Amino acid sequence: MTRSATALPRKADFELPAGVIYLDGNSLGPLPRGAAERAMRTIREEWGNELIRAWNSADWIALPQRVGDRIARLIGASEGSVTTGDTLSIKVYQALAAALRMRPERRVILSDSGNFPTDLYMAEGLIETLGRGHELRMPAPDQVLDAIDESVAAVMLTHVDYRTGRCHDMAAITRRAHEAGAVMIWDLAHSAGAMPLGIGAIGAEFAVGCSYKYLNGGPGAPAFIHVRPDLVETVDPALSGWMGHAAPFAMEPQYRPARAIERMRVGTPPVIQLAILDAALDIWEGVDLAALRTRSIELSEQFIAGVEARCPQLTLASPRDPQARGSQVSFAFEEGYAAMQALIAHGVIGDFRTPDIMRFGFTPLYLDAQDVARAVDILADVMARDLWRDPRFQTRARVT
Amino acid sequence: MTRSATALPRKADFELPAGVIYLDGNSLGPLPRGAAERAMRTIREEWGNELIRAWNSADWIALPQRVGDRIARLIGASEGSVTTGDTLSIKVYQALAAALRMRPERRVILSDSGNFPTDLYMAEGLIETLGRGHELRMPAPDQVLDAIDESVAAVMLTHVDYRTGRCHDMAAITRRAHEAGAVMIWDLAHSAGAMPLGIGAIGAEFAVGCSYKYLNGGPGAPAFIHVRPDLVETVDPALSGWMGHAAPFAMEPQYRPARAIERMRVGTPPVIQLAILDAALDIWEGVDLAALRTRSIELSEQFIAGVEARCPQLTLASPRDPQARGSQVSFAFEEGYAAMQALIAHGVIGDFRTPDIMRFGFTPLYLDAQDVARAVDILADVMARDLWRDPRFQTRARVT
Repeated sequence: MTRSATALPRKADFELPAGVIYLDGNSLGPLPRGAAERAMRTIREEWGNELIRAWNSADWIALPQRVGDRIARLIGASEGSVTTGDTLSIKVYQALAAALRMRPERRVILSDSGNFPTDLYMAEGLIETLGRGHELRMPAPDQVLDAIDESVAAVMLTHVDYRTGRCHDMAAITRRAHEAGAVMIWDLAHSAGAMPLGIGAIGAEFAVGCSYKYLNGGPGAPAFIHVRPDLVETVDPALSGWMGHAAPFAMEPQYRPARAIERMRVGTPPVIQLAILDAALDIWEGVDLAALRTRSIELSEQFIAGVEARCPQLTLASPRDPQARGSQVSFAFEEGYAAMQALIAHGVIGDFRTPDIMRFGFTPLYLDAQDVARAVDILADVMARDLWRDPRFQTRARVT
Repeated sequence: MTRSATALPRKADFELPAGVIYLDGNSLGPLPRGAAERAMRTIREEWGNELIRAWNSADWIALPQRVGDRIARLIGASEGSVTTGDTLSIKVYQALAAALRMRPERRVILSDSGNFPTDLYMAEGLIETLGRGHELRMPAPDQVLDAIDESVAAVMLTHVDYRTGRCHDMAAITRRAHEAGAVMIWDLAHSAGAMPLGIGAIGAEFAVGCSYKYLNGGPGAPAFIHVRPDLVETVDPALSGWMGHAAPFAMEPQYRPARAIERMRVGTPPVIQLAILDAALDIWEGVDLAALRTRSIELSEQFIAGVEARCPQLTLASPRDPQARGSQVSFAFEEGYAAMQALIAHGVIGDFRTPDIMRFGFTPLYLDAQDVARAVDILADVMARDLWRDPRFQTRARVT
């Protein structure tokens, strides 16, 4: 069964707290109905009663692949091209290390200055580990296409900018990367579950992402990695752990990579968090991603129009063209940190990103036009009455 | 309050299934009472109700350190020297990469042929990534001490052998490694929670381990890494993710490692599994590890005596000296796989390790002399009546 746009939102699929409008699913998705029960079943029935036997009886061993195949469908990749586990940082490292091995004669990693820091940090760490004089180039996002030349070993970009929501043109950049002989790595952290992606058709060698944002897998949910199908049997996993071995329980002294995508697994998978993610993915069965995208744009446009009409202090920091944005909208405001704290205190949860970005996510699975209208009302009130000047909203928390 | 040996076992602290004697806590510890409730609280109250705010309100951000400090106490390390997250494979990689950077002029990694494969595989992968001609040497375990010479950059060993339970002399090997100018890395997967370790006094630069065995953290529970206190402010984390940054939320373009042990963190921590592990560690409050060790040896000795008296088909594969063993006992039997399946079908859960090892763990937290006597009775019955010849016990499961 396919859910049409009119079948959205699916609020009943989530356990949302009363009195809260949640515009931060781009950072941590809310609790899907069924996730807690699945956790309980995994903990009590599988771990508690089956104990070690659950690796077979509950098929824990296949969970990373099973969940990977479900994510593959959501990013437009084919079965057997995605596996799950670890964190996004680790998966970035694997993809980048593998990419550099595929272009041993080149020395440039091309990213952009707006990329999420951990991707850049992991690249920095890898460069230092390699010690072979690789260079990380970070032009402005709109200069990336022109910066791709024959010196580039790997282009490593995040599709949707975490601050502004600006989308890269994945097809055009991948094409240019391939023309220049570079390997393409897409970070889909802010796009998986936000819109149709068609990563398979785009043909990037690697895609990585996290599952705790739009996929609602819960805090610290495992990451995913996609390898282009023609490469899964030859790609070098770089982090060669026992769960990526061709025969993990043969306990061979030498590493032999698994035949296919399993080789990108590393250590023992986080079974409980994978089970929760698996339950969270149930929500997506039958969701039409094109309809979801349409609705997300409607909600975002409604929000921008409302805020611009009523909050002159805020400046749109996202692209005005909705096709050039992901599923989030950002406004710049010098006192954005305090304003966001005031807004949260009044029941609208978004988040803040340094230096001055107020960030709002629009996820049509659990948001409707009424929510957006109410969020605009509350924000307008916070701004009109300068509620953010209250000193209790000025102190920075440890996590912003 | 310290629990004396006579206060063991603490069966009430675990949710053990009826009719099962669990001798496989060395592979996956059972479900601690309180762990499921803690998971529920983290999922429903923190994730569900607090949503993104829980990073501050439930202090998720500090969880890896808080849990790390609790593990530090169990391995005899000082506060601030342990952090948690990722898998053991990843933590091995970090420790080894850091160790090799500390000895840039040396090219040998010394392990042993009995080490758990993933440690060896990760070393292999790192050597390939580095591409600087490092060599992984794997002498027999009893040849390790003599194999340490001035060419060795890092000695990387697992304290307790996963197959035989044989213990390395950590103090003697670490001393020899340091005399030769090598960096010492101990894998405590099979010893953390099994016996007093005093890793701080031993002075190894690194120790790593997993938390789903004797620490009962659940399937895929996060790993830990200990860095010697005098090195935490200078060690190179190798995998430089945003959670190891000095200011993760400043979103700086360049990596700056956190001042102390936090730098060994990588990506977003698995909050739910960390919370479960935190609950599992409650059991250890006040447990006297010396008393635990004494009782573990009593149980193991009882088991060996019983099996040797009544199962002539089985040959002890563990050291006979209990001081030279961890908390597990192994017997070799050509048809060990089928025999273990038959034993499990009769309510005694141990496990099998290729080629012929029947492995039994003795964890005094939830096992007593009666359990051991009954396990011996059942094993003796399985062997006396050749129950393992039943064809249903011959087919290998995917996970052995």
